[in-house]
Amino acid sequence: MTDGRLSALRALLDERDLDAILISRSANKRYYSGFRLGDAEGPTSGFAGTLLLTRDANLILADSRYTQQAAGEAPDWEVIATAGPMQDEIPPLLLRHEIQALGMEAAVVTHADWAALAEAAPGVELHAIDDELVPMRILKTADEVDAIRRACSLTDDCFAHLVDFTRPGMTEREVALELERYVRMNGAEGLAFEPIVLAGARAAMPHGRPSEAVIERGNVLLIDFGCIVEGYRSDMTRTLFVGDVSGDIRRYHDAVREAQQAAIDAVSVGVNGQELDGIARGRIEAEGVEAYAHGLGHGIGLETHEPPRLRKSEAYTLEVGMVFSIEPGIYLPGNTGIRIEDIVALEESGARLLTTAPRVPLVIG
Amino acid sequence: MTDGRLSALRALLDERDLDAILISRSANKRYYSGFRLGDAEGPTSGFAGTLLLTRDANLILADSRYTQQAAGEAPDWEVIATAGPMQDEIPPLLLRHEIQALGMEAAVVTHADWAALAEAAPGVELHAIDDELVPMRILKTADEVDAIRRACSLTDDCFAHLVDFTRPGMTEREVALELERYVRMNGAEGLAFEPIVLAGARAAMPHGRPSEAVIERGNVLLIDFGCIVEGYRSDMTRTLFVGDVSGDIRRYHDAVREAQQAAIDAVSVGVNGQELDGIARGRIEAEGVEAYAHGLGHGIGLETHEPPRLRKSEAYTLEVGMVFSIEPGIYLPGNTGIRIEDIVALEESGARLLTTAPRVPLVIG
Repeated sequence: MTDGRLSALRALLDERDLDAILISRSANKRYYSGFRLGDAEGPTSGFAGTLLLTRDANLILADSRYTQQAAGEAPDWEVIATAGPMQDEIPPLLLRHEIQALGMEAAVVTHADWAALAEAAPGVELHAIDDELVPMRILKTADEVDAIRRACSLTDDCFAHLVDFTRPGMTEREVALELERYVRMNGAEGLAFEPIVLAGARAAMPHGRPSEAVIERGNVLLIDFGCIVEGYRSDMTRTLFVGDVSGDIRRYHDAVREAQQAAIDAVSVGVNGQELDGIARGRIEAEGVEAYAHGLGHGIGLETHEPPRLRKSEAYTLEVGMVFSIEPGIYLPGNTGIRIEDIVALEESGARLLTTAPRVPLVIG
Repeated sequence: MTDGRLSALRALLDERDLDAILISRSANKRYYSGFRLGDAEGPTSGFAGTLLLTRDANLILADSRYTQQAAGEAPDWEVIATAGPMQDEIPPLLLRHEIQALGMEAAVVTHADWAALAEAAPGVELHAIDDELVPMRILKTADEVDAIRRACSLTDDCFAHLVDFTRPGMTEREVALELERYVRMNGAEGLAFEPIVLAGARAAMPHGRPSEAVIERGNVLLIDFGCIVEGYRSDMTRTLFVGDVSGDIRRYHDAVREAQQAAIDAVSVGVNGQELDGIARGRIEAEGVEAYAHGLGHGIGLETHEPPRLRKSEAYTLEVGMVFSIEPGIYLPGNTGIRIEDIVALEESGARLLTTAPRVPLVIG
């Protein structure tokens, strides 16, 4: 399964004139080798499945905590058992494999580690290579789309459960804990990110955290969460109505829903993320309110946020195999916040929704 | 409250011949300014309360998500609202404050950020300063010890609840989820780390993760968890017996308990962590089994693992105000694992236990 991926890495060696690449980012380690590091485990001072790919060797470095796991999960890689820090363990390997130019992920490796290795291996040139590793992950295989779909499906089920579970008088935190319990007890490896559960005016904070705030009648309840299945992630937002809400809130919800649908309808091969963002933004501004300050969406896969980015400032042209969110919103500080977010996979025929919970307003309590 | 701390930082400027220090590590940001970054929030591409301390200014850099929070939580610091990345935002500040030598936490800052700043501010010398910032945190004030004590007390309560809650037939994961629910619903900001809940032979993995494995009669059940209260952390391990366990397991549990007690009894001002480790290790080896491969303990505070380290390879002399774990164990792969861990604060009169759950064997189910 990782064969084509390793060929692509070796082509990168040629292209960048490198003798080897050291891979430390969890999502890249899993993508290229199969090694699964739990979210809560890194970063540590030891080696948790760090990959060293040379022209003719696939080496996976693991300290005593991880050697067994690496051997089981990364069968195409030779396990190197380590005991010391990077600057002690890596230089002998570089010497043995005659590495003179080494690529490393500068956006993940700390400066202290980078500098220690540079000092311990003075004859080796270190090159920053982040941006070259992640893009290979943008176009998903059918298996990858299927794993994301399963994470999305569990998210749909959990959301249906939350609609039954949630009642006025509960706190944001109770709902957040229940959703975590639900996804973990139903097969998720964990949450894709700290869930956002915000009631009433608190929903105006795009990055707010669940608190002891009580959910009251007349509030909106914004729920934004995702889970991890087989390493792949989901991400979905719905904004519930708690009992009767004001006519303005209903109108804003309609505007966000129409903005999202217009963007989804416009998704097709060759379209640019900027254009989609403009379509959604235009529909919301037509309502006489300010549109969301964040982007319209982001790629998703082994990481919750990865390329492509769908936003004003970046021009990604969409291709078959990309999987990304579409999530317009309206935020009125001190008043209310509304966001609707779904994950779509781009197929030849256009966008296919992977999250499928109802997008019409749902009234609870 | 942060006055003495800021004086200590300014003394560090003199000592290291620096004009300013940039502080990015979450625990240090909180310690020196009061700014609280949620565990799940960093690292991001923007500024979440990064501190820039010069000889005469206390600046806290925050993008639009965090400016309000920074103003509220860090009243001694002037909020600088940022919109761009580090290499755009920092150089003008360095120029305005005439900074020629800047200290940065190399063990936290990525090499990409470090290199981008070095390029954008070519006249400024960048110096690595990690090791100088954390040691100030080793000696805790009475307020800090009190916050750790409250986290430990909630951990005790949660453990008492788990003893009632846990039954044979449950999975490790169910117990792990229940403990998280309990501490969050009872005032914790969150868990201090991904909890360890391991049944039977799985308890032999010092870093195992809760799985779908079912808890069965005759198993041990090793539970290692901690929570966060006001930013400060707890960490405690107990090994339960599920129904009747073998005589060997009882014997090993006794050995670990005695090893731990011997180390606690030996804690006093001026003693070395190495010596304590040797005392506990000796008692376990006297039982004819191999002692734990990890250290005897670690400091705890705003981070779960911080100096002092109590282990063979490091010679920290203990002082009043240090707070640390004592956690010997026996691990027999394929068979069983036993660990007992408590947090102690070193006072003039010796060790004071902050976790107080019973250390005698508890039989459940």
